[in-house]
Amino acid sequence: MTPIDGGITAPNGFKSAAVHCGIKAKADALDLAVIAADTFASMAGIFTTNLAQAAPVLVSKRHLDSAHGLGCAIVVNSGCANACTGDEGLAHARRMTEEVARALGCPPEQVLVASTGVIGVGLDMNHVSAGIQDACSSLARGGGSDAARAIMTTDPFPKEYAVRVTTSRGSFSIGGMAKGSGMIEPNMATMLGFITTDAQVPPPLLHRALVESARDTFNAITVDGECSTNDSLFAMASGNSGVSITEELYPALLDGLLAVSRPLALGIVRGGEGATKVIAVSVNGARTVDDARRVARTIANSPLVKTAVHGADPNWGRIVAAAGRSGVQFDMQRLTVRVGGILLFENGLPHDEAAAAAEDILRRDTVDIEVTLGSGDASATIWGCDLSAEYVRINGEYRT
Amino acid sequence: MTPIDGGITAPNGFKSAAVHCGIKAKADALDLAVIAADTFASMAGIFTTNLAQAAPVLVSKRHLDSAHGLGCAIVVNSGCANACTGDEGLAHARRMTEEVARALGCPPEQVLVASTGVIGVGLDMNHVSAGIQDACSSLARGGGSDAARAIMTTDPFPKEYAVRVTTSRGSFSIGGMAKGSGMIEPNMATMLGFITTDAQVPPPLLHRALVESARDTFNAITVDGECSTNDSLFAMASGNSGVSITEELYPALLDGLLAVSRPLALGIVRGGEGATKVIAVSVNGARTVDDARRVARTIANSPLVKTAVHGADPNWGRIVAAAGRSGVQFDMQRLTVRVGGILLFENGLPHDEAAAAAEDILRRDTVDIEVTLGSGDASATIWGCDLSAEYVRINGEYRT
Repeated sequence: MTPIDGGITAPNGFKSAAVHCGIKAKADALDLAVIAADTFASMAGIFTTNLAQAAPVLVSKRHLDSAHGLGCAIVVNSGCANACTGDEGLAHARRMTEEVARALGCPPEQVLVASTGVIGVGLDMNHVSAGIQDACSSLARGGGSDAARAIMTTDPFPKEYAVRVTTSRGSFSIGGMAKGSGMIEPNMATMLGFITTDAQVPPPLLHRALVESARDTFNAITVDGECSTNDSLFAMASGNSGVSITEELYPALLDGLLAVSRPLALGIVRGGEGATKVIAVSVNGARTVDDARRVARTIANSPLVKTAVHGADPNWGRIVAAAGRSGVQFDMQRLTVRVGGILLFENGLPHDEAAAAAEDILRRDTVDIEVTLGSGDASATIWGCDLSAEYVRINGEYRT
Repeated sequence: MTPIDGGITAPNGFKSAAVHCGIKAKADALDLAVIAADTFASMAGIFTTNLAQAAPVLVSKRHLDSAHGLGCAIVVNSGCANACTGDEGLAHARRMTEEVARALGCPPEQVLVASTGVIGVGLDMNHVSAGIQDACSSLARGGGSDAARAIMTTDPFPKEYAVRVTTSRGSFSIGGMAKGSGMIEPNMATMLGFITTDAQVPPPLLHRALVESARDTFNAITVDGECSTNDSLFAMASGNSGVSITEELYPALLDGLLAVSRPLALGIVRGGEGATKVIAVSVNGARTVDDARRVARTIANSPLVKTAVHGADPNWGRIVAAAGRSGVQFDMQRLTVRVGGILLFENGLPHDEAAAAAEDILRRDTVDIEVTLGSGDASATIWGCDLSAEYVRINGEYRT
């Protein structure tokens, strides 16, 4: 497997274009993108589990169902989430798919839609319609990087990645882009991800691979424990490489998806609001993977752990306490806590003599926290970030 | 019911004393207190649900069991939590009860113990023993206020309260004191509460009333969602008023406990680390009280809601999203959100015309958030606080 350039347009069979159509006030800020398959593609999607689901999420879910996972394009805008916008918002999201479908010559059910930005505000459809026309008429093989910029809100940098996967049956490519948390007004931490591949993958297998790869990447990250109205992750498979993914090649597809998703997911964490450090929390020796994830997630979301890491404080006590309140049963006497490989807690007692060494490690921009429970063989890792005064500043600013 | 002075020594049959014995470095900072019943008292206790339980928690639980809820005193120190201190810590906690028992002439099992402060550091028993001797020889009827100061760590103010309850069978008093979250080094948010009454209450009834009153007071507050190794709430009933609590008078006892616990619990929130505002989150129209509590707690702990309130931003979107990710099922179309009584969200749509009025309310030091789910008749309130850059500063400082 080798990294390649091109993001979502690295795989064959896809074109993309991004435009500024006026949803974002700033002149020339890209705010709408279309990703289109040359013919058509298998499609899969995973969506927010929040009960409050934005109009584009509702429309995309319905389209995936009714088109049985086949499709031709995805349209995405930034600057307006089209969330909490009632029936009018639903009509707007449907109209976005209809206009793309008309421009590309496919049924509207074969177009998916995503939005990110301010919630509770409707889309200006004059801008959006003009943008869709522009984008659909300028689709290009090299459009991936522009698209990766067009989906950004307050992300500090664009996130795209692609790899070439070589198998005994030939090689195929996988590309992806993502945007993370952060909007100054009124901030929901929307996560959007888009993956393309030129492998030939039946829709059910594509869905399975997307779910499985997301579990340890996009669903294993946390910025502040919030889950937005718009979170969506899409995959499209064009088949243009001629490599057909069967059960035999499924592991190669999954490895490729993981290879693309991991840097995108970590990019979201690193670009998290106010984040200065990535924290990788690994929990080993759990009874089940779910237990391991629950402990890791509790530690990664603990405000006291996050602020301690921010201040480079080797505060094992907060890690022990977060593990202890996670709801997972284990024997405190068998718990160990390591920071950057340095043992700080074992047999119910601290190793404070190691604190100075751990403090040095905590000053780095990636911090590993490793906890063993001594209850079994299962493990999991969750990636989070520190909590800074900047997070409070970004999210505490007046909306006006 | 009327408020009275005197805190935990307001009820008859109790004496208290507080001393500086050297656990806290600062000269003259009170760091150890004893609360003693003149003869003996019914005792009850509720403790942290964290798997990591400090030595004093383990010892107090065992003593309550073995003495069948009868006791003579509680000893409490601040400045050192005696948590994660292994077998030596357990021996120290037991020795504290033994030394109080010897000084007062009762069995050690009738003495309970609580500690708050730095974790992972052992107690200096020379200081503690001297402090216990001093305190036990200076017990006084008016010692409540000193005790309320002796249990503080970085609490910005002491918290004590007392009431006189009048019933058809005579009157009795209830007093209490509490300490909240906040220790500069290495900060666990320990909550300690102590309630005394001169009503005569059998231990099982005292335990039941303590659990029931804590549900809507001490267990309905959150500063940062963390749960410490040392959290404890104790009650002692001397019986000196001559009023015997039966099922008939149980509601009067409960009302009194609620009246004393509520201002103490709110005092903990108001004195929370970096807090500038109290947020009362009320959820109505839930299917069950547990559902209502879960939604309210998710909103009260949401970093995005907490920072929005800090910045006086009437951000109903974050409240809707927090409710939606709480895990409780409800119909989004029936959700309403009010801030300070002002309707901001209804029928799936915002009322942004009301935002300016809500912003004014958000500048006050207590903010009411009211959410109705439209699923049933159950309701619950959780009290939390805003999230400020000061919280990050306090908790992100180096431990060294």
